[in-house]
Amino acid sequence: MRNLVMDFYELTMGQAYFDAKVVDKVAYFDVFFRKVPDEGSFVIACGIHKILEYLHNFKLSKDDLDYLRSLHTFSENFLTYLKTIRFTGDVYAVKEGTIVFPNEPVLTIKAPIIEAQLVETYLLLLFNHNSLIATKANRIVGAAQGRAVMEFGSRRAQGESAAIDGALASCLVGASGTACTETGKEYGVTVLGTMAHSFVQSFDSEFEAFKAYALAFPDNCTLLVDTYDTLKTGIPNAIKTFNEVLKPLGKRLKGIRIDSGDLADLAKKARKMLDAAGCSDTKIVVSNSLDEYVISSLLIQNAPIDSFGVGEKMITAASNPILGGVYKLVAVKEKGKIEPRIKISGNTEKVTNPHFKTIYRLYDQDHKVITDLVCIYNEKAPSGPLEIVEPNSSNITTVINNYEVRPLRIEMMKHGKIVYEVPSLKETQAYVQQELATLYEGARRLEYPRLYVANLSKRLQHVKAKLIKEANS
Amino acid sequence: MRNLVMDFYELTMGQAYFDAKVVDKVAYFDVFFRKVPDEGSFVIACGIHKILEYLHNFKLSKDDLDYLRSLHTFSENFLTYLKTIRFTGDVYAVKEGTIVFPNEPVLTIKAPIIEAQLVETYLLLLFNHNSLIATKANRIVGAAQGRAVMEFGSRRAQGESAAIDGALASCLVGASGTACTETGKEYGVTVLGTMAHSFVQSFDSEFEAFKAYALAFPDNCTLLVDTYDTLKTGIPNAIKTFNEVLKPLGKRLKGIRIDSGDLADLAKKARKMLDAAGCSDTKIVVSNSLDEYVISSLLIQNAPIDSFGVGEKMITAASNPILGGVYKLVAVKEKGKIEPRIKISGNTEKVTNPHFKTIYRLYDQDHKVITDLVCIYNEKAPSGPLEIVEPNSSNITTVINNYEVRPLRIEMMKHGKIVYEVPSLKETQAYVQQELATLYEGARRLEYPRLYVANLSKRLQHVKAKLIKEANS
Repeated sequence: MRNLVMDFYELTMGQAYFDAKVVDKVAYFDVFFRKVPDEGSFVIACGIHKILEYLHNFKLSKDDLDYLRSLHTFSENFLTYLKTIRFTGDVYAVKEGTIVFPNEPVLTIKAPIIEAQLVETYLLLLFNHNSLIATKANRIVGAAQGRAVMEFGSRRAQGESAAIDGALASCLVGASGTACTETGKEYGVTVLGTMAHSFVQSFDSEFEAFKAYALAFPDNCTLLVDTYDTLKTGIPNAIKTFNEVLKPLGKRLKGIRIDSGDLADLAKKARKMLDAAGCSDTKIVVSNSLDEYVISSLLIQNAPIDSFGVGEKMITAASNPILGGVYKLVAVKEKGKIEPRIKISGNTEKVTNPHFKTIYRLYDQDHKVITDLVCIYNEKAPSGPLEIVEPNSSNITTVINNYEVRPLRIEMMKHGKIVYEVPSLKETQAYVQQELATLYEGARRLEYPRLYVANLSKRLQHVKAKLIKEANS
Repeated sequence: MRNLVMDFYELTMGQAYFDAKVVDKVAYFDVFFRKVPDEGSFVIACGIHKILEYLHNFKLSKDDLDYLRSLHTFSENFLTYLKTIRFTGDVYAVKEGTIVFPNEPVLTIKAPIIEAQLVETYLLLLFNHNSLIATKANRIVGAAQGRAVMEFGSRRAQGESAAIDGALASCLVGASGTACTETGKEYGVTVLGTMAHSFVQSFDSEFEAFKAYALAFPDNCTLLVDTYDTLKTGIPNAIKTFNEVLKPLGKRLKGIRIDSGDLADLAKKARKMLDAAGCSDTKIVVSNSLDEYVISSLLIQNAPIDSFGVGEKMITAASNPILGGVYKLVAVKEKGKIEPRIKISGNTEKVTNPHFKTIYRLYDQDHKVITDLVCIYNEKAPSGPLEIVEPNSSNITTVINNYEVRPLRIEMMKHGKIVYEVPSLKETQAYVQQELATLYEGARRLEYPRLYVANLSKRLQHVKAKLIKEANS
């Protein structure tokens, strides 16, 4: 991680806080988003572990400070102050892989204001990017209805870290593996891949290429069949490779991959040809600009596809490539007391929820999520009949009975130390599936899903109303 | 750069080439794209310098090899071979910042096939990402019609390198600076930024916040005026700051920034209020999900805006977040002779242009681009009346007279050594402007721009037709 991936205004504000002698004022900042990408119902919170690592290692190097000095913008006293700055604050957050809804504080930083400010940009970048890809990948994995989804997008990723981290986020939510070898190395996820068209082209014939590959990987031989003509040459040559190379070795043809043309039609014809040749165990893999919609549509056509290679549309979340997570000051500590703060706005939906808060998630008898209740930090978990006021329309209320409650956030850092046992990859993968099981099926529908809102407790609503009134007076 | 950002199939193909004893077969691979993002007319080729650096430093570390060994997929002989592998090939490419069109070989690699294959993924990632952002940023800078565009997108970038490299690509094509401090440090571009809403909220009043900032930066004071109410409090407090803090110091109010609401209306009202207060030199900066379309629309409304802060829509190229550059084998060397290769496809537009090639760009008397002519590598530059055959319709021909010719590509690496003097940032920035000046204005139009196609020389057309015929026989 490079330290100065930091909006320059974090530093100019830093200088102004320093000059005004308020660097140590304790502030509370919430991370939340206002809209789920793709008109979806929920986001899968991701990047939390990377955020902890970032905060834990936060500092500026001598090079960084020399560069800042060269800009003639900062005082020498301030630069000296920055030399030893570390993150000494507290972090409250939902677990990596938690399902979250708009306008709830997924993560809260409590820290001296200058520290909280300096970490803003990178922290948001990590939350936004990782959660964006996890959320998109979950849509794609869901559309495949249990068939394997393989992440193939590195070459179209928006930079090196997008490739590596995007592959990890995809695997966290159920992709069965990735082509990004670095992600395999760094995180232990499954890596996979077989051959490109160039491999086939580089030999004197398609069969020669297939033969070379089959000899190199007799136990794991998936052949790319669309370099010249899928039905006329590709599949016949794959079958010939099975008969003349693999069979004599006692091996099977593991798969074929189709990367162009009418994938549903080709898969159906391929299935028949393979079955007729005694290759009914050969898997059919398809790729070519797939996303959740194309996959759904192929399955509606009953295409006999066993797995999907998904590239650019997943690694960039192409249909909606931004998760708009924000970082808003919600309170400051004045004379030992937490004082809530609000940001009013020309756009009503941008008015923030003030105060240091916590989230309770309510589940029904089937352990499905009913709703989230955002409370002031020291409010007790609700019990007994609970009246909920629709956040955007104070006239509509509902009473909830018979629910279970779970506090959604955990204290993960305290005074700059990680006080949380970071789960393993496997544990997080299992947790994501557990989380998904708490949603009604309709929440995972691609079109017009069942929506959730985060509700505010009555006490929090009062605080908010009071601050709006004060600001407008 | 992390070495194993490499699709796993590059390595499995590598093993198969190794087993088939063809690792040293010399292959030619072209980088090209088929479609300009956003239905635009051209792409600005970018990432070329990073590609040279990547190829120059290419190797696998002991850790990488240990990881690969742990997969039980590769032979020990092959892993030993990989230990000392370097890129020893040649690179031909257009200069960083060159305007390029679909289906022309922007870059060609000539190298032993295994080397050419292993570098595929990272090379494409660099070309695709950097060119994507440069191309998008150019649209946005163009829409601002000479007003400043500032890159503010790090927090929504798809990962750390997307933030750093995207900011650089934006600055290469005319953004006046970036908020990404790391990009300033690494590349020397201008960094800029002032304050966030949190700064204003953290003080007891908006005026107190403005005062603190003005005292810290009296020479460079831009105030964010929409934390509470732009017209009722923000601008009045900015003017008060000018009168009570800056004026007594003999300083001016440099700017105000508006980040929400009806930006055109607010800018008009702000301009009047500032002018009436003797601040007619105060600049109006706006931000909030801007892109080329919003900027055009604000300017059509004659909004008196001096500069635009552009975030998420530019750093992710949100309207079209993928440049689909591909890497295709176009020839192999057999017994010292270059043998062209083709990839046929179920999708006609995916049939590749075979052979080792070069590009000539033709300019008219006004030094505007007429078209590009893609030729076989050893064809001389055209001279005299030139008959062009429309690539997608062999019946349509045009004759071009009175043109100047420029070979578009340069040999940048030879036997793995960089043999090209890499231009400085400033030189590349100037070159981009020079390139843009060679386009008819219509090519930069956002909607239905004038389009260019890369044409094939007659000799190349013959080679292609012959290979298609052979493949279909």
